[in-house]
Amino acid sequence: MAQTTEKIVLGIDPGTMYMGYGVIRVLGQKIEYVDMGILDLKKEKDIYLKLKKIYDFTIELIKKYLPDEFAIEAQFFGKNVQSMLKLGRAQGVAIVAALERDIPVAEYAPLKIKQAITGNGMASKEQVSQMLKALLKLKTEDLPEHLDATDALAAAVCHHFETRTTVATKKYSSWADFESKMKK
Amino acid sequence: MAQTTEKIVLGIDPGTMYMGYGVIRVLGQKIEYVDMGILDLKKEKDIYLKLKKIYDFTIELIKKYLPDEFAIEAQFFGKNVQSMLKLGRAQGVAIVAALERDIPVAEYAPLKIKQAITGNGMASKEQVSQMLKALLKLKTEDLPEHLDATDALAAAVCHHFETRTTVATKKYSSWADFESKMKK
Repeated sequence: MAQTTEKIVLGIDPGTMYMGYGVIRVLGQKIEYVDMGILDLKKEKDIYLKLKKIYDFTIELIKKYLPDEFAIEAQFFGKNVQSMLKLGRAQGVAIVAALERDIPVAEYAPLKIKQAITGNGMASKEQVSQMLKALLKLKTEDLPEHLDATDALAAAVCHHFETRTTVATKKYSSWADFESKMKK
Repeated sequence: MAQTTEKIVLGIDPGTMYMGYGVIRVLGQKIEYVDMGILDLKKEKDIYLKLKKIYDFTIELIKKYLPDEFAIEAQFFGKNVQSMLKLGRAQGVAIVAALERDIPVAEYAPLKIKQAITGNGMASKEQVSQMLKALLKLKTEDLPEHLDATDALAAAVCHHFETRTTVATKKYSSWADFESKMKK
C-alpha cells in the first residue's frame, strides 16, 4: 500500500464581480499546484444569472478536479449590510454546490489565510502571492492578472496547513496525543 | 382552447431558523390556496447542514408542486452585517435551487408584500394573516402556528398581484396602454 495519502483541495473566493478558484494536490506533506483562475461576473448584470453562474461554475470545477475538500475564503465583516447580503448569497451558492456533491467545506477569514501563508495577518495581497509562488514553485507566467485567483489558491493552501496534523502519515505518541492534535 | 391560464406560484421566506413556504394556484384572475408550512432549522446547529437542508427542501417543494414561478420574501436591510451575511446565504441557496430548475424568481421586500396584501406597508403580521384568510378562503385551522408560513404565502399572493396585468386574458386598449400596464 502507498504510504502517502493524496487529496485534492479546491479553494474558492466567491464575490459578486469575480469568483476566484485555486486547486492544489496534497501528497503526504507535499503540496503541488494544479490550477487557478477566475469566473468573470462583472459583465453579468442580472443578479440571478450571477448566482446561477457561480453554482454552475462550481459544479464544473468539482467535475473537472474531483476535489476531496473545499476551502472558501469568507469575509465575515463588511462596510454595509447590502453588500454583505449580496456576498452572502454568492458564498451560499458556492458552498451548497460543494455540499450537494458531498464535499466537506471549511471556511477561513482573509486574515487567517494571510496569517497561515505568510505568518502575518496584515500581509498585502502581493506578499501572499509571492509566498505562494515560492511554496508552490510557480513560474512568473502562472501568476494571474486577478488576485482573486491567488486568494482562492491561498485558501486551499491555508486549509492544508490547518488540517495537515490529521493526515494518515502523522505519528501520534499516544491516544491523548492524537486527541490533542485532532483538536488543533 | 381554455380561456384561463393556470399557474402555480411557490412563495418562500428563507431564514436561518425557519424557512416558510406557501403555494397558490392562479386560474385566470382567481387564486386558490394549495399549501403552506415551514422547514424547522432551529435544532440544526451546523451552518452547512442548514444550507443543505434549505436547498434539498426547496428542491422537494419544486418536485411536489411543480411551480411555474417562484416568489421570495427578501429583506434588504438588517441590524448587523453578520446576520445579513447568514440571511444572504440562506436566500442564495433557495434562489439557486429554483434557478437550477429553470423557474423564474422574483423577490419582494416585506414592506412591499404587506402593501400588496393589505394596502398598508406598516400592517402587522396578524393583519396580513387575516387578509390572506379572507382572500384565499382559509379555514381557521389552515392558519399555521409559525407566521413564516403566512409570510411565504403572502409573497406568493403579492407576486400574483404584481404580475397579473401581464396574463394572457388581460385586454389592452392600445399598444401604449399595454406598455404602460407592463411597466407597473
